[in-house]
Amino acid sequence: MTNLDELYAEYRPGWTLARPFYRDGAIFEAEAGRIFRQVWLFAGHECQIPQAGDYFTVEAGGDSIIVIRTEEGDVNALFNTCRHRGSKICTEERGHAKRLVCPYHRWAYGTDGALIAARGLPAEIDKSSLGLHRAHVRLTGGLIFVCAAGEPPDFDSVEAEFSALLDPHDLAGAKIAHTVEYELPANWKLVVENHRECYHCPTAHKEYSRIHYDTRLSSTAWKEEIEARTEACRTQWAVLGLDTENVTPTSSFTGAWWRANRTAFPAGHVTESPDGKPVAPLMGEFRQADMGTARAGTYPNFWMHATGDHAATMRLTPTGPESTWMRADWLVRADAVEGVDYEVERLIAFSDRVNREDRDLILGQAGGVSSSRYAPGPLVLGDESRVQHFLDWYMARMKETL
Amino acid sequence: MTNLDELYAEYRPGWTLARPFYRDGAIFEAEAGRIFRQVWLFAGHECQIPQAGDYFTVEAGGDSIIVIRTEEGDVNALFNTCRHRGSKICTEERGHAKRLVCPYHRWAYGTDGALIAARGLPAEIDKSSLGLHRAHVRLTGGLIFVCAAGEPPDFDSVEAEFSALLDPHDLAGAKIAHTVEYELPANWKLVVENHRECYHCPTAHKEYSRIHYDTRLSSTAWKEEIEARTEACRTQWAVLGLDTENVTPTSSFTGAWWRANRTAFPAGHVTESPDGKPVAPLMGEFRQADMGTARAGTYPNFWMHATGDHAATMRLTPTGPESTWMRADWLVRADAVEGVDYEVERLIAFSDRVNREDRDLILGQAGGVSSSRYAPGPLVLGDESRVQHFLDWYMARMKETL
Amino acid sequence: MTNLDELYAEYRPGWTLARPFYRDGAIFEAEAGRIFRQVWLFAGHECQIPQAGDYFTVEAGGDSIIVIRTEEGDVNALFNTCRHRGSKICTEERGHAKRLVCPYHRWAYGTDGALIAARGLPAEIDKSSLGLHRAHVRLTGGLIFVCAAGEPPDFDSVEAEFSALLDPHDLAGAKIAHTVEYELPANWKLVVENHRECYHCPTAHKEYSRIHYDTRLSSTAWKEEIEARTEACRTQWAVLGLDTENVTPTSSFTGAWWRANRTAFPAGHVTESPDGKPVAPLMGEFRQADMGTARAGTYPNFWMHATGDHAATMRLTPTGPESTWMRADWLVRADAVEGVDYEVERLIAFSDRVNREDRDLILGQAGGVSSSRYAPGPLVLGDESRVQHFLDWYMARMKETL
Repeated sequence: MTNLDELYAEYRPGWTLARPFYRDGAIFEAEAGRIFRQVWLFAGHECQIPQAGDYFTVEAGGDSIIVIRTEEGDVNALFNTCRHRGSKICTEERGHAKRLVCPYHRWAYGTDGALIAARGLPAEIDKSSLGLHRAHVRLTGGLIFVCAAGEPPDFDSVEAEFSALLDPHDLAGAKIAHTVEYELPANWKLVVENHRECYHCPTAHKEYSRIHYDTRLSSTAWKEEIEARTEACRTQWAVLGLDTENVTPTSSFTGAWWRANRTAFPAGHVTESPDGKPVAPLMGEFRQADMGTARAGTYPNFWMHATGDHAATMRLTPTGPESTWMRADWLVRADAVEGVDYEVERLIAFSDRVNREDRDLILGQAGGVSSSRYAPGPLVLGDESRVQHFLDWYMARMKETL
Repeated sequence: MTNLDELYAEYRPGWTLARPFYRDGAIFEAEAGRIFRQVWLFAGHECQIPQAGDYFTVEAGGDSIIVIRTEEGDVNALFNTCRHRGSKICTEERGHAKRLVCPYHRWAYGTDGALIAARGLPAEIDKSSLGLHRAHVRLTGGLIFVCAAGEPPDFDSVEAEFSALLDPHDLAGAKIAHTVEYELPANWKLVVENHRECYHCPTAHKEYSRIHYDTRLSSTAWKEEIEARTEACRTQWAVLGLDTENVTPTSSFTGAWWRANRTAFPAGHVTESPDGKPVAPLMGEFRQADMGTARAGTYPNFWMHATGDHAATMRLTPTGPESTWMRADWLVRADAVEGVDYEVERLIAFSDRVNREDRDLILGQAGGVSSSRYAPGPLVLGDESRVQHFLDWYMARMKETL
Repeated sequence: MTNLDELYAEYRPGWTLARPFYRDGAIFEAEAGRIFRQVWLFAGHECQIPQAGDYFTVEAGGDSIIVIRTEEGDVNALFNTCRHRGSKICTEERGHAKRLVCPYHRWAYGTDGALIAARGLPAEIDKSSLGLHRAHVRLTGGLIFVCAAGEPPDFDSVEAEFSALLDPHDLAGAKIAHTVEYELPANWKLVVENHRECYHCPTAHKEYSRIHYDTRLSSTAWKEEIEARTEACRTQWAVLGLDTENVTPTSSFTGAWWRANRTAFPAGHVTESPDGKPVAPLMGEFRQADMGTARAGTYPNFWMHATGDHAATMRLTPTGPESTWMRADWLVRADAVEGVDYEVERLIAFSDRVNREDRDLILGQAGGVSSSRYAPGPLVLGDESRVQHFLDWYMARMKETL
């Protein structure tokens, strides 16, 4: 590990990472063990598994994990590896099962992972020691988080903040209206860095910059309007019964590895759509379209925007030193009817466009940081301070003695 | 090699292997040198190269080997690498050649590997030292085995047992009626382990389990019928002149790395087909359809079933730590006419189905053993004792001081 | 590096390289640093970027380099990696730009690499230290060479020889009539070795051997004709005003890593075409078709043949231990009109055929040298002495203390 330690030591806050961090296999392996199998990861939505026995699988640092709804209505997370000969129990990405039966030799497990049946297993072998390994699970605001570590990091603050921000949107009672998945041939940290700054927005995301204040936050010309508009919304939303402590002009991280806040739209816009007009029925108990934008996110794999009529979430999964799997979901209220209450094309137009624009930028960056002449460059602080926030967090995790 | 030695030391008989054995590149390399370039490998069928000059190529631990019929009717095995600049001599998988001529600079070799012609080679360079390197070859029961080692392991017992079992089927005088090849994205040992137990058969191979006694061998309810049926067949086959010493209820290994035995079908079945009825004309000198199932196999790359009317063989070739090339051949008597005497679809239906069912099981297992939480699991001895037999053999080869 | 040093020590002049040189990732990495990022590489043709702002990108040892024409008409070479966050500046293979603007955050550079604009960059950060890294460039005979090293090797002799040989062909004022690109799954040194000997020509390149004297050079029967024909051409070309010092029967290297010479055709042939007849209008100021064959080449990535009516160039780029990207260009005079003055099919027929024949030979060799039984073989000196010339050069570069 000496080489990695030397690399960590060379990190200079306020500058980008050294070249190996974006392409080296040994660092990728280290990240799986020190980050993706240690921290809380966004796994998916509660509404993906409404019934007892509904499950989906998700990857954490190379490990497949089954996320399943129990008879009691809880959600469990179980390592998807049979304790007999190691076969995957669930070979599909999603499904429904009362018991988890390994397809190879039919060893059967309960939704809590306990080994129920193993034909021919001698009595002297202790069945209770052969249950599926369990991962930790926490639910908040309709989102499911898992952690593969033995001892998980604290989650209570995240749960409280996300719940306060997202419960009014009732994502647990929503449905996924559309999903887009793609592999991005770039290191996952380039994806996160991209998401953590809007320095590129004015030229790369023109539509986004028109609908949101993000690119105008540091402009003195806009300071007054943004503050006034934020205050007006806060007052209006408080009247409607919303918790407004999290209403802010900016969308900075509110914790060491998460954020949960709500921003106001410029007047005339009520949701994230090309024209700022609604694209679906109101969610939860909302009584008006303009609920601003609830923004939530967690390092290393999740961010989302929720407006009065829909939510768009993004989950990333590293698949190699230079490839990342991206999954974007769009949620609307469960009883909304496609073609009547919403059109998928219109629903996804705004954020799908942002995602495509970012994909191209990230690909170009991946091509450049692979050069032998690439060296860490200076972050433009202010505009890119949140990139440093992420890199500082990342480096602290990597250097930590486990 | 310290790391590998530590891994070997951790092996616990009666349990599956540790995770690196199913996915690590260093172990894959070690296996090429300690197993695939040291032991006897099934290469193919004598009937693939009936005429002098007929050849095919086969891979042994990453090396291409030419298997060629000589003028004298022998079979030679030659490393497919020109002694001049290393070009492949035979670039096709099969062909016919009186002399082996390198396509690059036309250096020519005899079917015994001797360098015959090398334009411009100075007289002071000793031509006799520049023949193609030779591998060892042995023929038995119509099968061709090769060994790339300097000093090959003993083959005499295999030759004797295979000859006694298979000669009556006359595979040397048969023809290949059909071949199926595919890459299985899984470590080759998962393939062998799968083949070495029938614990998965009752649920995974329902048709197979109906036609064969395998899954009923440990049932006391069936003990009497199986023994009676075996004894009846043995008597009947002896009358027909067959050597019946190898007739047994089970199909266990008869040597350290091979097996050769014949099992009886349940009454009413005479061959391996969905309905147990013949699918091709009788082979060799057989005078009745029901000759049971002649089962032969060798670690690490071969198994076969031969019945009165056809034979189905399987050869595996590791192509990476997590990929294996599979080749299945079906043989019928040489003068059988497709469409008249047999239909390919019906001929392959039974064993092709078993192969497909196994492929899915192996893929699922490959997905699971790659998890960081996978750990060796307990074999269900009795049902899975032969998996341990293979793993013990494997581990002994890997630990051996060469 | 001990292992590599041992491998270097085993090199035996007059024999081919050991197996790892043709397939090992560590050697491939070492080559990038010791050869492809240190020496002069052929990048492309001046005529590809005639106007100020025209550019193309080229790869040197894994680094992308922008080759761009300046307002002053010079050619600059700039590393294609933004000094901010490392993004590729030019994501297309060719284009036109007055300023090089990074697509990510719009940092802008001049054609000399100087950082012109970086929105929001604090004044205390020195802009002049953040220009694009520059590579060295030299032009000669219409060809562009780049060198990524800090201190480039001497180029003056190459410039002088290439200029004397190629200026009369006026490649700088020509145009690319056709390009063929393909990936060859073989180590790049096998490609160079193939090009450096004609021992394989008599049987592998029958058409080539008819049009050129190459395969007859060592034959005493042809000695007189070749010398007479060479002398006759030399006299004729001198009359036409050509520098004829470089006219020779052979096409050996004229320097440590380059060659520049002109050979005569057998009487009756005037260019490289299947029938030896012209395929395009005369180039430069030529007044007759038969100007012999101007042959130029540089280790490690370039060779070309230019005749009175066209030129065919070849550039190779290693893309992995066992893969090489090949680019073949055919040039004709700039005002020649396709379909009127030349047909692409006829223009490329001769050398495209040679390239295809070589590709097959190289693929076969790549397959053979990967065998564990491959070992260095004896070069047939005389016929293959120039292979040794290349391997000696290669080994000297690899062993050099940088």
